[in-house]
Amino acid sequence: MEYAKGRIGRVFTVRIDHGDDLILELIKLAELERIESAVFMLLGALKEAKLVTGPKESKTPPEPVWFGFDDAHEVLGIGDIFLKDGKPKIHLHAGAGRGDNVKLGCLRGESEVFMVVEVFVFELEGISARRIEDQEQGFAPVGFEQISNLE
Amino acid sequence: MEYAKGRIGRVFTVRIDHGDDLILELIKLAELERIESAVFMLLGALKEAKLVTGPKESKTPPEPVWFGFDDAHEVLGIGDIFLKDGKPKIHLHAGAGRGDNVKLGCLRGESEVFMVVEVFVFELEGISARRIEDQEQGFAPVGFEQISNLE
Amino acid sequence: MEYAKGRIGRVFTVRIDHGDDLILELIKLAELERIESAVFMLLGALKEAKLVTGPKESKTPPEPVWFGFDDAHEVLGIGDIFLKDGKPKIHLHAGAGRGDNVKLGCLRGESEVFMVVEVFVFELEGISARRIEDQEQGFAPVGFEQISNLE
Repeated sequence: MEYAKGRIGRVFTVRIDHGDDLILELIKLAELERIESAVFMLLGALKEAKLVTGPKESKTPPEPVWFGFDDAHEVLGIGDIFLKDGKPKIHLHAGAGRGDNVKLGCLRGESEVFMVVEVFVFELEGISARRIEDQEQGFAPVGFEQISNLE
Repeated sequence: MEYAKGRIGRVFTVRIDHGDDLILELIKLAELERIESAVFMLLGALKEAKLVTGPKESKTPPEPVWFGFDDAHEVLGIGDIFLKDGKPKIHLHAGAGRGDNVKLGCLRGESEVFMVVEVFVFELEGISARRIEDQEQGFAPVGFEQISNLE
Repeated sequence: MEYAKGRIGRVFTVRIDHGDDLILELIKLAELERIESAVFMLLGALKEAKLVTGPKESKTPPEPVWFGFDDAHEVLGIGDIFLKDGKPKIHLHAGAGRGDNVKLGCLRGESEVFMVVEVFVFELEGISARRIEDQEQGFAPVGFEQISNLE
């Protein structure tokens, strides 16, 4: 375990509209507002999306199993924004349900909002965090450099 | 995408008890404390509830598909509170599980808490947001009027 | 319904690493940083965990139904930290998915992180809350003592 202590800074209440691409819009927001570290929650619906629903086998680096859908699903999600190579990178886990079918995984790549997705982005202030690629593990874990003592 | 920038204001740590109606209690809280804009997270269990688990077809206005249960389910949820016609309106997406059965959707109307639901309500300060009915789309999207610049 | 009004205090951005025990690490964090009341959100993956996926029957005290897994699942969760008998107690509801299988329940006891779990812990400031065992109900509901008026 590693951690950094900070405070909540700016909070963005975001409405992403029918037809928009969810992750693309979040990246646009992060770039426009120069958000470097944040956690967010969301609720809404998606017409199309792709989720990684676990690794084929429980070993690293993981070989992802994909699930995609192209009819409207209700969603809820928790995610974060950190810089990787100077650019905002979104990490988002979501549950997606339609009738009896529910999937849960890591939402990546293109998606299309159905009606609306509401997102609440909490900027993390007073920490310095970056994602740095780890080829061996097969992902880019977030690392911290404490830049201020808030106590 | 539209968004408003604010800060977290008051935070309400709420215990909703066995037999209570979840959404009704949240509306009571919002009215009593004059909460106009908020996001919340919850965890607990429900004995009864109804969820919209997607539209019948992927078109707007949507024809909702309902799923109801009347035995105890574990829940987690993410929601928000905004005023619509001057009254607090709850939008809540939740996952509900019991054994092998999991549903995910938009929790609406009457429900009954089983044992307890714990809710954490974060007031959104410095923004002006309202839900305004859009007949064509078939729902009331949240709209913003920026009332202060917090930077 | 009972509730307490406070503010967000310190925020901990936490990376829990491959092989770590999720709840144990959160307890360590709470003890080290003297966190008495907090809410948290998490996303990541677990190699092993056990969830209570509801009561056998919808009555109190509940007889828990357990679901355990020992292959990697994607997770998202919402939880809280309050003191019980002077020690931090974790209450965590999570959804866990692998391919077509999704479970949702109360994550308890030992678990093992797969790759990473990212946790965002929001300290609740200005409230006094404790869990106190209620033998009849079969759990320890959180109770409040308002210690300051923040308005």
